[in-house]
Amino acid sequence: MALVVQKYGGSSVADAQKIKNVAKRIADCKKKGDQVVVVVSAMGDTTDDLIQLAKTICSKPDKRELDVLLSTGEIVSSTLLAMCLTEMGCQSISLNGQQAGIQTDTAYSSARILKVEARRVKSELEKGNVVIVAGFQGITASLDITTLGRGGSDTTAVALAAALGAKVVGRYTDTEGVFTADPRVVPDAKPLSEISYEEMLELATYGSKVIHPRAVELGELYNIPILVASSFNDKPGTLIHGEVSMENRNKVRSVCHDLDIAKITVVGIPDRPGIASALFVPLAEAGLSVDTIVQNASVNNITDLTFTTTKGEFEKSMAVINPLAKSIGAKQVSADSKVGKVSIIGTGMQNTPGYAARMFNTLSKEGINILLISTSEIRITCIIAEDRVKDAVKALHKAFQLDQVKS
Amino acid sequence: MALVVQKYGGSSVADAQKIKNVAKRIADCKKKGDQVVVVVSAMGDTTDDLIQLAKTICSKPDKRELDVLLSTGEIVSSTLLAMCLTEMGCQSISLNGQQAGIQTDTAYSSARILKVEARRVKSELEKGNVVIVAGFQGITASLDITTLGRGGSDTTAVALAAALGAKVVGRYTDTEGVFTADPRVVPDAKPLSEISYEEMLELATYGSKVIHPRAVELGELYNIPILVASSFNDKPGTLIHGEVSMENRNKVRSVCHDLDIAKITVVGIPDRPGIASALFVPLAEAGLSVDTIVQNASVNNITDLTFTTTKGEFEKSMAVINPLAKSIGAKQVSADSKVGKVSIIGTGMQNTPGYAARMFNTLSKEGINILLISTSEIRITCIIAEDRVKDAVKALHKAFQLDQVKS
Repeated sequence: MALVVQKYGGSSVADAQKIKNVAKRIADCKKKGDQVVVVVSAMGDTTDDLIQLAKTICSKPDKRELDVLLSTGEIVSSTLLAMCLTEMGCQSISLNGQQAGIQTDTAYSSARILKVEARRVKSELEKGNVVIVAGFQGITASLDITTLGRGGSDTTAVALAAALGAKVVGRYTDTEGVFTADPRVVPDAKPLSEISYEEMLELATYGSKVIHPRAVELGELYNIPILVASSFNDKPGTLIHGEVSMENRNKVRSVCHDLDIAKITVVGIPDRPGIASALFVPLAEAGLSVDTIVQNASVNNITDLTFTTTKGEFEKSMAVINPLAKSIGAKQVSADSKVGKVSIIGTGMQNTPGYAARMFNTLSKEGINILLISTSEIRITCIIAEDRVKDAVKALHKAFQLDQVKS
Repeated sequence: MALVVQKYGGSSVADAQKIKNVAKRIADCKKKGDQVVVVVSAMGDTTDDLIQLAKTICSKPDKRELDVLLSTGEIVSSTLLAMCLTEMGCQSISLNGQQAGIQTDTAYSSARILKVEARRVKSELEKGNVVIVAGFQGITASLDITTLGRGGSDTTAVALAAALGAKVVGRYTDTEGVFTADPRVVPDAKPLSEISYEEMLELATYGSKVIHPRAVELGELYNIPILVASSFNDKPGTLIHGEVSMENRNKVRSVCHDLDIAKITVVGIPDRPGIASALFVPLAEAGLSVDTIVQNASVNNITDLTFTTTKGEFEKSMAVINPLAKSIGAKQVSADSKVGKVSIIGTGMQNTPGYAARMFNTLSKEGINILLISTSEIRITCIIAEDRVKDAVKALHKAFQLDQVKS
């Protein structure tokens, strides 16, 4: 008897019929004799709807209260799924974050899991129940409700799997796995059969919406493989794990992109220690998050500093940066909100020359100007004009022969 | 500094604007320097909507799961009200049933409160918070969520008031108080300034929808007056309490009616011990509740037994009763689903002759036939034809001079 942990996303439980379909999949799994724990997201757009509801009542909802409000979305879907399973003859019980023992810190809206006290889950499994856990939520030491931030249900599932000693987490949504590029941009993008934790972490951070990076981190930390697959068919999906085969390690695995980017450059700063903190500490204090940061080599003690932000935080970031730039003696602030980023990712790039050259060459041949470059050991990212991002993804997908990946 | 416990019904928090209005009332109360605890129902028709949602997924939702589902309605309204108050500058926190310490038995869908452990509520009050409690819900010893049944939020409010030692519960909905009759039937019905617990208990049980009987019982048990008033205006409302003035004690206080009644008579039963239990134990086991029961005096050891049920449970009750009637040797079962009941209520009836006579006489003059009579010390109820109930209410309201009550 194995212990199976599955997680179903909001699109998989979006309406009554979809909940019934998911229940059938779970019941089939249970029939094989396994113990089954299922983590669910809120139905469809429930979380967005609840945020909208809060905004009809107050302009800046209190964070603790907003977490209480949002936590109801997953409670509703978990209990509907449980009652559906029980009526199908598959004995089931729903547990909320507290009942499932998801203990977190007090960082409302982006709480971190401190510990999973899975006693109740285990006792319900021993009674023969399928245990349906409301994802995305936890409880503080003072019994206040927290949420784990967007994608938090993925994190709930991996944390529970770690606490219960499950061998793998099955994560089901409306996507069939991790692709060599976004299939909406590159029609012949191929699903990958496997990908490493570190590659997935870069993909998730640099534009792939398939799975939340924190869930991948946690999977890597506890060495729990995550199978990303569709809840609407039985295709094999993509296994995110640590032991990717040699053949797959030595390659670019995927091209990803992100259009939600704006670029801000502080030009002509007198170069001295403390410039970066003078700019970025106030941004952080204003709750604005900054992505890629690049500082040019200093010429005559004058340097330029460029960073990117999301389009949604662009205006606010400019309002913070403009007076700061003046105060540190910069010449001007230039900005471009019509940019995007494209990245190639693969452990094969590690210690292997030529990938960067091939990427730049491909973009050049397409007549695409590179505005900014950033790299990690297994990733190369270029910031380019927003309206050329899709062309870049297509060209890079072809240049790195990702259309020839066997799925 | 007084401690004020208020309860707002679903109609008072039905939408964003109404929640803002309620928040303003609460903030005004808090400004007077009082400590304020507020219990809320779910917004508008939320509870019905959630039941409908469950029914799209399964025909007979598991009771534990349904309670979890329904409990989210009050959590949503409590947290919206709390965030609204906090944004208005009136520091506030929402607590769910568990956090508010509402400990119940395990009778899902109609749980009874065993104890209120109000430590958290007290500590939040001491911090200066207005405490908004999600009504209608509690938690069992094994930390499972229960609901208290329809009208349960009233019970939550009175139980909290008892635990906190509050002097009175203010209960606000869209009605202005307890009336001498339903104002939709009798346009010159008058609001009562006060009414006794026992009178209100009879009224609530015999058709008045103003407040749930269990809340009144609890108010009487702990001697906590309940002020029933409107959240939409500042009219004085009705005080339900124990010390009703002499002048008001000596009268019929209100006429109430209920159209949701059906009547079943088992005719010609050989009279012997055990007949009643032979009929009513199986009904109870089928989850069917029975209201008024009348057994005629036995003639020649043959008796008739009549009882009423709701129209919704009429068909099911007939299905249970028909075979039973045969097995106990009854001649036949006659039934009438087109009946209703009308009652006059008042402690003044106690030990005072003439009220029954005046009631029967009034109905007779209106040409209304009485099908069944039942009485308590402070109530007389007649079952009559459904289509004459409103005529009866109007005539009785006039006959007992309730149109002359000073409000």
